[in-house]
Amino acid sequence: MDLITRKEIEKAIQLDETVIEVVESAFRDLVEKQVQMPPIMRIDVPENNGEVDIKSAYIAGYDTFAVKLSSGFFDNYKLGLPSANGMMLLLSAITGEPKAVLADNGYLTDMRTAAAGAVAAKYLSREDVKTVGVIGTGAQARYQIQALKLVRDFEKVLVYGRTPEKAEQYKSDMEHLLNIPVEITVSPGELVEQCDLVVTTTPSAEPVIMENWLHPGLHITAMGSDAEHKQELSPEVLQNADIVACDVKEQSLRLGELRSCRNQEVIESSIELGEIISGRKKGRSKSEEITICDLTGTGVQDTAIARYAFEKIEKQGKEEE
Amino acid sequence: MDLITRKEIEKAIQLDETVIEVVESAFRDLVEKQVQMPPIMRIDVPENNGEVDIKSAYIAGYDTFAVKLSSGFFDNYKLGLPSANGMMLLLSAITGEPKAVLADNGYLTDMRTAAAGAVAAKYLSREDVKTVGVIGTGAQARYQIQALKLVRDFEKVLVYGRTPEKAEQYKSDMEHLLNIPVEITVSPGELVEQCDLVVTTTPSAEPVIMENWLHPGLHITAMGSDAEHKQELSPEVLQNADIVACDVKEQSLRLGELRSCRNQEVIESSIELGEIISGRKKGRSKSEEITICDLTGTGVQDTAIARYAFEKIEKQGKEEE
Repeated sequence: MDLITRKEIEKAIQLDETVIEVVESAFRDLVEKQVQMPPIMRIDVPENNGEVDIKSAYIAGYDTFAVKLSSGFFDNYKLGLPSANGMMLLLSAITGEPKAVLADNGYLTDMRTAAAGAVAAKYLSREDVKTVGVIGTGAQARYQIQALKLVRDFEKVLVYGRTPEKAEQYKSDMEHLLNIPVEITVSPGELVEQCDLVVTTTPSAEPVIMENWLHPGLHITAMGSDAEHKQELSPEVLQNADIVACDVKEQSLRLGELRSCRNQEVIESSIELGEIISGRKKGRSKSEEITICDLTGTGVQDTAIARYAFEKIEKQGKEEE
Repeated sequence: MDLITRKEIEKAIQLDETVIEVVESAFRDLVEKQVQMPPIMRIDVPENNGEVDIKSAYIAGYDTFAVKLSSGFFDNYKLGLPSANGMMLLLSAITGEPKAVLADNGYLTDMRTAAAGAVAAKYLSREDVKTVGVIGTGAQARYQIQALKLVRDFEKVLVYGRTPEKAEQYKSDMEHLLNIPVEITVSPGELVEQCDLVVTTTPSAEPVIMENWLHPGLHITAMGSDAEHKQELSPEVLQNADIVACDVKEQSLRLGELRSCRNQEVIESSIELGEIISGRKKGRSKSEEITICDLTGTGVQDTAIARYAFEKIEKQGKEEE
């Protein structure tokens, strides 16, 4: 069994077209192949305001699959530590033998989550996106926009964050990285009104986007909510959209934006990304449609990215020998 | 994060009084402390006749806890490989950070399972056990008897196995190890009738012990059944016992011997090992009682043994420096 460090993984895997293809294939497999994806296992550590989630998925025909641990300990800031930790284990689907510990500390999750945002935009946003907005200023606010740039050729980014210093830092970092202007907005409403594509990346427990800000042609990817108490979109946002998509419907109903939706018709007509990718359902067909995609994060993405990372690192290792 | 190999773990941890104490404490904690022990997560790999189980438990006040993966791929014998694989991950309960990967390949599970058998015998079997019987000839058939020897001073072992060569090998290995006679019996019935304490260690889907073989003073530990399709004791064995104990009632009802029990009174009066250890319920009080203990294997045992192994190996490492 190999222990692969975050440094090695960061060296081998960056946000590029291939990572997006890997995640796109995973969503297709989710609807086209037999997939064993048990419900997320969660261990709470209430004394330390912590939780550990375990996700896994086996896709029929693959020779390996991943088990992912990710933790959030929300008092860590008091110790000067980041709240998130995590690793992926890659197991042989032929014999059950452990192949590798990918001690990525959340890096591969960041990659596969951002890639899912790009896949959502590819099938649901307008082709001619000019201005992209992001709510939040953390790691995903960066990776999501980086991934989007690989599928849409936008000219400007708007950002909204509650802490002005963080928004300033975001502007400076991202202008440097993308080489296009990044503007800070004073409210989420103002941001949504000016954008063709908006990504929400917050851990909010209350809606940050309201229905009266929607306008024709808008696409929203909500990737923040992944727990029973979180929500980024008002339920009326879903009701006023032409297409409501998600990664996995059962998870979105339990942990994502569909959880707060009381409109049975919206729930029933909502579709999964994999259904669009495989051609079973239609993505955006008119430029004036309003589209939504809710991402909760799935075990198939973890299995897909862990396999890709392991294979790439193994191949590089052999070439160096 | 440390990667600790099976070899290092085997060197540091053997079946001894301390391991039994560690597991005994874990069962006590299970009833006395706040414990977060989510249901077992299972990923099936039907094409390769395989399954992976994930167990975990956090015990309030402990600074670390374990997540255990164990797999059984039952076609591995065709490749000349053992069916079982596994590892434990030790996480900080303060920050969520991974502390160690214990690549024990099932060794710590073997230790904590055998230790649980010894704890069951300590509280439920007669003090003056003379003859111990074991059904099955595999690894647990060996470890269980080794662990029992640390809590009961028996003089003879009887073994029953379906394959004569394996029974012969067991006799030869165990006589050498324990320095007492081991006799092979021709049937489970004959074995049970001659023993004060019997351990069943089979993956059987049908009862291997029948009610008409029971006799005053007998204790049976059934550690084989840990899945919905397995069973080692006829339901009437439970009905005819004075005490029916188990490690975790909810698991025994789902995966163990209580699953096949149709007698509501037996189910309701059944008790957990931790209740006996903590003094809340009584273990054996008369030498003629018939007692049963069903072990399905628990996350608290995994957390307890992983913590103990990691601390011991870390301490030895420091001493060597």
